[in-house]
Amino acid sequence: MTVTYTADVSSRKFISNFLRLLFRWRGSIYKLMWVDLIVFVTIYAILAFIYRVCLNNSLRYGFEYAVMYCNSQLNLIPLSFVMGYFVAIVMTRWWAQYTTIPWPDSIATLISCSVHGFDDRARAMRRTIMRYVCLCQTIVFTMISPSVKKRFPTYNQIIEAGLLQENEKQIIETLDLAFPHYPKHWMPIVWAASIVMRARRENKIRDDYAVKTIIDELNRFRGLCGFLLYYDWVSVPLVYTQVVTLATYTFFLCSIIGSQWIDNPQSPTASNLVVKYFPILSILRFFFYMGWLKVAESLINPFGEDDDDFEVNWMIDRNLTVSYLIVDEMHQEHPELLKDQYWD
Amino acid sequence: MTVTYTADVSSRKFISNFLRLLFRWRGSIYKLMWVDLIVFVTIYAILAFIYRVCLNNSLRYGFEYAVMYCNSQLNLIPLSFVMGYFVAIVMTRWWAQYTTIPWPDSIATLISCSVHGFDDRARAMRRTIMRYVCLCQTIVFTMISPSVKKRFPTYNQIIEAGLLQENEKQIIETLDLAFPHYPKHWMPIVWAASIVMRARRENKIRDDYAVKTIIDELNRFRGLCGFLLYYDWVSVPLVYTQVVTLATYTFFLCSIIGSQWIDNPQSPTASNLVVKYFPILSILRFFFYMGWLKVAESLINPFGEDDDDFEVNWMIDRNLTVSYLIVDEMHQEHPELLKDQYWD
Amino acid sequence: MTVTYTADVSSRKFISNFLRLLFRWRGSIYKLMWVDLIVFVTIYAILAFIYRVCLNNSLRYGFEYAVMYCNSQLNLIPLSFVMGYFVAIVMTRWWAQYTTIPWPDSIATLISCSVHGFDDRARAMRRTIMRYVCLCQTIVFTMISPSVKKRFPTYNQIIEAGLLQENEKQIIETLDLAFPHYPKHWMPIVWAASIVMRARRENKIRDDYAVKTIIDELNRFRGLCGFLLYYDWVSVPLVYTQVVTLATYTFFLCSIIGSQWIDNPQSPTASNLVVKYFPILSILRFFFYMGWLKVAESLINPFGEDDDDFEVNWMIDRNLTVSYLIVDEMHQEHPELLKDQYWD
Amino acid sequence: MTVTYTADVSSRKFISNFLRLLFRWRGSIYKLMWVDLIVFVTIYAILAFIYRVCLNNSLRYGFEYAVMYCNSQLNLIPLSFVMGYFVAIVMTRWWAQYTTIPWPDSIATLISCSVHGFDDRARAMRRTIMRYVCLCQTIVFTMISPSVKKRFPTYNQIIEAGLLQENEKQIIETLDLAFPHYPKHWMPIVWAASIVMRARRENKIRDDYAVKTIIDELNRFRGLCGFLLYYDWVSVPLVYTQVVTLATYTFFLCSIIGSQWIDNPQSPTASNLVVKYFPILSILRFFFYMGWLKVAESLINPFGEDDDDFEVNWMIDRNLTVSYLIVDEMHQEHPELLKDQYWD
Amino acid sequence: MTVTYTADVSSRKFISNFLRLLFRWRGSIYKLMWVDLIVFVTIYAILAFIYRVCLNNSLRYGFEYAVMYCNSQLNLIPLSFVMGYFVAIVMTRWWAQYTTIPWPDSIATLISCSVHGFDDRARAMRRTIMRYVCLCQTIVFTMISPSVKKRFPTYNQIIEAGLLQENEKQIIETLDLAFPHYPKHWMPIVWAASIVMRARRENKIRDDYAVKTIIDELNRFRGLCGFLLYYDWVSVPLVYTQVVTLATYTFFLCSIIGSQWIDNPQSPTASNLVVKYFPILSILRFFFYMGWLKVAESLINPFGEDDDDFEVNWMIDRNLTVSYLIVDEMHQEHPELLKDQYWD
Repeated sequence: MTVTYTADVSSRKFISNFLRLLFRWRGSIYKLMWVDLIVFVTIYAILAFIYRVCLNNSLRYGFEYAVMYCNSQLNLIPLSFVMGYFVAIVMTRWWAQYTTIPWPDSIATLISCSVHGFDDRARAMRRTIMRYVCLCQTIVFTMISPSVKKRFPTYNQIIEAGLLQENEKQIIETLDLAFPHYPKHWMPIVWAASIVMRARRENKIRDDYAVKTIIDELNRFRGLCGFLLYYDWVSVPLVYTQVVTLATYTFFLCSIIGSQWIDNPQSPTASNLVVKYFPILSILRFFFYMGWLKVAESLINPFGEDDDDFEVNWMIDRNLTVSYLIVDEMHQEHPELLKDQYWD
Repeated sequence: MTVTYTADVSSRKFISNFLRLLFRWRGSIYKLMWVDLIVFVTIYAILAFIYRVCLNNSLRYGFEYAVMYCNSQLNLIPLSFVMGYFVAIVMTRWWAQYTTIPWPDSIATLISCSVHGFDDRARAMRRTIMRYVCLCQTIVFTMISPSVKKRFPTYNQIIEAGLLQENEKQIIETLDLAFPHYPKHWMPIVWAASIVMRARRENKIRDDYAVKTIIDELNRFRGLCGFLLYYDWVSVPLVYTQVVTLATYTFFLCSIIGSQWIDNPQSPTASNLVVKYFPILSILRFFFYMGWLKVAESLINPFGEDDDDFEVNWMIDRNLTVSYLIVDEMHQEHPELLKDQYWD
Repeated sequence: MTVTYTADVSSRKFISNFLRLLFRWRGSIYKLMWVDLIVFVTIYAILAFIYRVCLNNSLRYGFEYAVMYCNSQLNLIPLSFVMGYFVAIVMTRWWAQYTTIPWPDSIATLISCSVHGFDDRARAMRRTIMRYVCLCQTIVFTMISPSVKKRFPTYNQIIEAGLLQENEKQIIETLDLAFPHYPKHWMPIVWAASIVMRARRENKIRDDYAVKTIIDELNRFRGLCGFLLYYDWVSVPLVYTQVVTLATYTFFLCSIIGSQWIDNPQSPTASNLVVKYFPILSILRFFFYMGWLKVAESLINPFGEDDDDFEVNWMIDRNLTVSYLIVDEMHQEHPELLKDQYWD
Repeated sequence: MTVTYTADVSSRKFISNFLRLLFRWRGSIYKLMWVDLIVFVTIYAILAFIYRVCLNNSLRYGFEYAVMYCNSQLNLIPLSFVMGYFVAIVMTRWWAQYTTIPWPDSIATLISCSVHGFDDRARAMRRTIMRYVCLCQTIVFTMISPSVKKRFPTYNQIIEAGLLQENEKQIIETLDLAFPHYPKHWMPIVWAASIVMRARRENKIRDDYAVKTIIDELNRFRGLCGFLLYYDWVSVPLVYTQVVTLATYTFFLCSIIGSQWIDNPQSPTASNLVVKYFPILSILRFFFYMGWLKVAESLINPFGEDDDDFEVNWMIDRNLTVSYLIVDEMHQEHPELLKDQYWD
Repeated sequence: MTVTYTADVSSRKFISNFLRLLFRWRGSIYKLMWVDLIVFVTIYAILAFIYRVCLNNSLRYGFEYAVMYCNSQLNLIPLSFVMGYFVAIVMTRWWAQYTTIPWPDSIATLISCSVHGFDDRARAMRRTIMRYVCLCQTIVFTMISPSVKKRFPTYNQIIEAGLLQENEKQIIETLDLAFPHYPKHWMPIVWAASIVMRARRENKIRDDYAVKTIIDELNRFRGLCGFLLYYDWVSVPLVYTQVVTLATYTFFLCSIIGSQWIDNPQSPTASNLVVKYFPILSILRFFFYMGWLKVAESLINPFGEDDDDFEVNWMIDRNLTVSYLIVDEMHQEHPELLKDQYWD
């Protein structure tokens, strides 16, 4: 479920709004990072303990060399640079996916305006077209979202949800056998287009112009659904993700070693007791860089089950309900026309 | 209310235009930051006082270690980098939201051109359609803007403003009960579409083509309103905001400590009396980074009540007034056709 | 007037093209900066003179401390970073505003093709519609461009330019009194739409389709004009501009002090006579950063009177002339149809 | 074949998702880089061996000077900066090319809805139009993708695949002789448009509006195919690619020399045994920068045969199959209209 | 002529693809830079010679001071930053201009489908409309591209190329006299629109809908041509180009001096013989930054005669040929309709 916080930061308060955001748990950086943080601190502490207690002199020298070496090399990988670019790319894709999700409202309005008649056949046409539109979206979501897949593991659950009929399922399964390698999300849209053509022949749609507009909208809907699939097929190239991940974890191995306090005159902090006992800034730096990587990790697939992911199951229910409402209950209904307050 | 200053910087003057902008208070960085600045300076002064007056020698050593440690670590978090990316993202969203706000002018022009007739029924149709369009926008604004919510806490205030009728309110409230989890901003648009269809049946609209164009525009208007909602639901991910906020405040804790003057030969500024008494540059650096964060803070929700936020209440009034003006007073009126100055 | 130089850099020459661009004055960085440069050099020289001649020893120490302090802090504000982002934002807006300016050519072509008839009434209709389109743009320009405002301080000058008639002015002024807070640039477009509807009723436009297309184009034109207004109302947030300006000028105060030559063994350049007498690189650095700020300053309002601003007055004249040419002189005229050179 | 991994990173797991991505081989950074890595390590080892074993004192001094010189100059080229910009440009182009690939589904739906009749002639028309659409795409792919070129080296293989007929091949070859310098991918689209016009004349398409819509879609398809060609013709300018490549390889020559351990008191790591025997961080830095360059290298032409390239051959087969399915098997068929689960 | 190299980098080879790109001359960085490189090396050598041979001691001190001063100031101008932004802006504009160039293919397809008749008059209409479209583009190219201007210095050469007729030239020249300050590229498009209207009146175009679509496309073509002009009129602001050029050349003056080897104990490289005799890295750094500037220089006007510029002359020929081919030779022709390979 998405984490919404804009209402908390709408206006300037005496205390900074962003400061107050730090005290949240759901969708927070703490929730994403506490495991990594514990791992980091533990390894740091173990290394410090070994160095200060267990090692003999020659091993200590080796350890001190390693610390100084890591410390000097720490800034040679421009981690902030590559992370910045990577997170920017991931965020752009994340938002683009959000805006790609199609909503059936315009099609419902068009269908309600264009397919005339209050008899059962006209109602069935209107409702079936909208059902097919929602079905197309649902099939795509089962392919890209594990949480939707969990809700609809097979076509039977989609039937139970009222999005599919038994006879339709058989047609899809026949074609699934014939062409197993191609996704079938476009089939309900083609059916919907055929129903539109039939409605035109039965004169339930009264002009060719409306037919054209509806077909265009159906095609647009299918196109957006297809785009969601392409986003799923072609993600940020694996090489890029690997390079960034390797760079971050390398940085932290160096960081764990390089920020150890050592009792060596070549170390500038050798006599600094604060460094010896409270290496708080090394931990904060870890927190910062790893947090940045976690931002990327939680956004790279926005259809998952993270706190920050889109509420696709809610969308599926909402779309079917609102579609039926528009094309059936509210079909060509509107409140009585009254003179408004500013009339003359 | 938005802060406009382009008129002041339109042309080059002898004195730099930007310099003159520094002497503004409304919407200024000083207004946003004076609290934080006072807090910073106070803590800085208290620490300096404690160090110079209260501490015994061993505590002074500890303090000096802490100062040297913080000072050396200050640049290890690439704050400018991550702030730059974050502010860029926030500004992009801020401008995108501004350009997403729909204006009813094109619908009004279309309605005025397409719905013919000067009788009361035709007038009521034109006015009601425009009222529904403005109502849709107002409902969306009550959901995303605290200042509009304050103006219209319930439907009753919307009725008083002349945007809603009593009978319409009852329909919406019935549906609010039936489907409490779905926003209802699209309902007035569906009603408007139904009125358009009725106007077509009563031959007040004379061709199917105009119907199609109006429905398209209504759908586009509803789509943009929906987009404003999506911007509200899915903001910059909380993790990112938290990471940036944490980084900035960590930086400043370090900065308050690390830029203290200490009387220690290891400190390069130990004998520098300017540093000792006028640490002005540390304060300016604080001003700079915190100012950058404040830019992000004031832009992340542009529908709030900050100086820099959009004037949504003005928009609501303007849209209803101008809509009525176009579809009613100015309906198919134009000045007499005269020969212009360059005629032959 | 815009500064065009692409013709000079179209192809590689023996001497670098960009080098030759340095010897221009109009629209150049020298013209923008000479005042600031003189101020900088003067203050620098005065400080150097004071230090070297006027001060006694203890004041010299103070001055030297200040120099060393400023010098060490100079790089702590990431000026290049924040300037880079800021200039990028300003340039994006600047180009977006340029591409937002609407041109009436497509409307003129449509009107010429759709409004038939060579009688005075048809001609008047075609010319008046185009005049209203140009008028809408001119009204918007008077609101955003000081140079256009100077040319048309009141409606009377617009009448003199042949863009407005006396009776139209009275209608606008009446509405200005009734609704003083709303801009009125959309009124001529609504009139133009009404004339189009009248032309349809008088069968000067022969199909509903053409009406629809013209109304769409008129709406698009009005929308773009409105967008120019929004760019003017909502500029880069004042806080951001202030932060950048403050950072730059702070940097230069530090720079003036920090790059002074001092006769102190702690200074690495104490014995360097080049630094003592020719601090040329400090001046170049000033030139560079301040030049970057000037780029932003000259682009933030592209409708002003800078060398680099858009030639809006030229546009107003050109648009009216070309519009009349297309809808009147060239109306449904074309050269005789001949067989071309490659015929068979 | 594209490497898909989003399903692995959809939701937060106990162990970081990105860490698990490191253990992949197909499309991985290891597969791209192992040759370069071996070359780097080998040269590094040879140099180290020569220095430590083979050189006499004066040559050792020379080597040490070279090492210190390279080490000090290593950071003077802002490699991360220029690489970041370059990779950003390449990735933008890569994704833009992916989204430019046109899909024939909308044309198929339109043809199926608009070209009526179940007789052989109508079927042939529908199938031939879709075949021409797929043929246009295939011809473009043979021009930009080596793997498609390998599959269809001449027109004969395209005939065998059922995308072209013998008589059509002869027409194309005639024109290829007449105008050898112009690509011919637009010819099938022009034929398809001619068939549409014939279908209109034979009244298989019943209104001009449908004709217009289909012609528009055909033009859009041709336009996107043309765009794929432009991406191929005008790549990232060669100068830019050369500058980046030169900078990277220069950096690594310096890096191989500059990160050598030397037994010289001027070297800060002279006594550090870790540096002497385990120069692991230099290798990681190489890995990181070269990996970044490899990201650019594998994305600059996304129609090649790398692991990460688009599956164009799959697309060609899929498009023909699905097109025939929509316009023929499913032509104006849809499941029986039934009352759905939520009916009243 | 554009330099195409994507075919060389389509797939991963054993040896890095990018490495092989380094061995190209046409459009290469070497070709752009050899003059500058020779100048740089020569000045560097002269300075080194003067210092080592000609100077007496006091002048040597002065020179050494200058070297140390330049060396210490070298990194104070963030050249990589400002260059990165500048090149990014230039590349964005360069690609945008490429995609702005309009192609007449869609208009040709529409004309071929809509203007019926095989008689001479219909043929002349189709051919003349397309000729006007190509003429509009050619006129624009003569205004922005020196190589096209060289090919068509006056209207007579355009007549010889078959794009213009004598009578049309006279009309244009009359208007050129009347309105010398406005470009006339839109005139052929207005003529083309008039021919379309005449074809409608003579019933060669059979429905208003086709007329509307063609007018829209003509307007779009004219709009894109106009956009090419705007790109030419308003380039990257001169101030920005000057700032970047100044910064780069300043950097190199400093670099030539600052990277000189000096025999001074304060210089860290005083005893380094590699620096003394092989200052190869300074040269590479020059190569890198200057190369970056050259990228910008060769892209800022893509219609020139550089190796990397667009082949506008080829486009002019191709467009006329293909246009005639589509509207005349291939007019409503298509291969015989046959059953395809997968029929049943």
